[in-house]
Amino acid sequence: MEYFGGQITKLIEQLSRLPGVGAKTAQRLAFHIISMPEEQTEILSKAIVDAKRNTHYCTKCHTLTDGDLCFICKNPKRDSSTIMVVENPRDMAAYERTQKYKGLYHVLHGAISPMLGIGPSEIKLKELIQRFQNEDIKEVIISTSSTLEGETTAMYISKLLKPIGMKVTRIASGVPVGGDIEYIDEVTLLRALEGRTEI
Amino acid sequence: MEYFGGQITKLIEQLSRLPGVGAKTAQRLAFHIISMPEEQTEILSKAIVDAKRNTHYCTKCHTLTDGDLCFICKNPKRDSSTIMVVENPRDMAAYERTQKYKGLYHVLHGAISPMLGIGPSEIKLKELIQRFQNEDIKEVIISTSSTLEGETTAMYISKLLKPIGMKVTRIASGVPVGGDIEYIDEVTLLRALEGRTEI
Repeated sequence: MEYFGGQITKLIEQLSRLPGVGAKTAQRLAFHIISMPEEQTEILSKAIVDAKRNTHYCTKCHTLTDGDLCFICKNPKRDSSTIMVVENPRDMAAYERTQKYKGLYHVLHGAISPMLGIGPSEIKLKELIQRFQNEDIKEVIISTSSTLEGETTAMYISKLLKPIGMKVTRIASGVPVGGDIEYIDEVTLLRALEGRTEI
Repeated sequence: MEYFGGQITKLIEQLSRLPGVGAKTAQRLAFHIISMPEEQTEILSKAIVDAKRNTHYCTKCHTLTDGDLCFICKNPKRDSSTIMVVENPRDMAAYERTQKYKGLYHVLHGAISPMLGIGPSEIKLKELIQRFQNEDIKEVIISTSSTLEGETTAMYISKLLKPIGMKVTRIASGVPVGGDIEYIDEVTLLRALEGRTEI
């Protein structure tokens, strides 16, 4: 892309570092950015720097926020006796979209992975334990992914919390709504079978 | 996404204005940007503003460049007697990737579209005509898209240039390499048949 000059090449290079953005997408985005009004490019550019500079972890649940506490931890209408443990803010956003869960969250920022060398001390587990000293928590819902790492983390947390008499639950595993049985993998089908409920 | 605070919401909103970036992709990109080192976000942010500020149209072929002339128009090794007419710089980039075309380009920045109200004066057609006064052009290859707009534009240019004795050619239409005949639409198959060559 050198024939367009160094400025565009640099922009394409920077954009292609973003996740899911390949060479062609980066090029399309770059051309779009150049065709935007200058004012608009400045707004985008500022939004990037501002979001990075002013966003940090909520002091309570460790999700991303630009305040001291996030809007969920600050909301007196949320049920503070229930904490849902998730791997990252994106998973939390997914539950918020259901508009049904009214408890609080705890964001681990990762999952235990012996393969990648990520131990319990590298995720926000100590911070989860600390919350039991200050908050009146009755149930912990473990909503880590259904991956090896997510399951390992769920098991680890459960073993930590059960001895202190905490109610620990795990989200159900099974066939996704709208999922055609014939295309579902065996492990998921076995989970769905094991977790069957009476109708 | 308000629960993450205004800064992230603003970034997600700005990112989702980019082409092909939906709400979920914008969210994933925003979280990635926040997890990048601050220095890296500044480089990205600067690349956006710099590319916009310093990029304009090549005075000869009207592609994007940060110089006066683009690298292709400046290159004495290119065959200046052949001009390929394309709709946008992305199409030009596609031909450059073939590394076989050695002529120059002319970027129209659009195509004639009665549906969208885009007439001949809204694309760089006048500029194409002007080039014939200053340059020694022997062939014009029309490489606009195989869409209604692209074909209309090709026809329009051809009608303009043929009366002045210019050799005007149109790129071939047919079955893409690796394309399975059974999945090719009828119009393309008819074009491929019409354009058949002896082997």
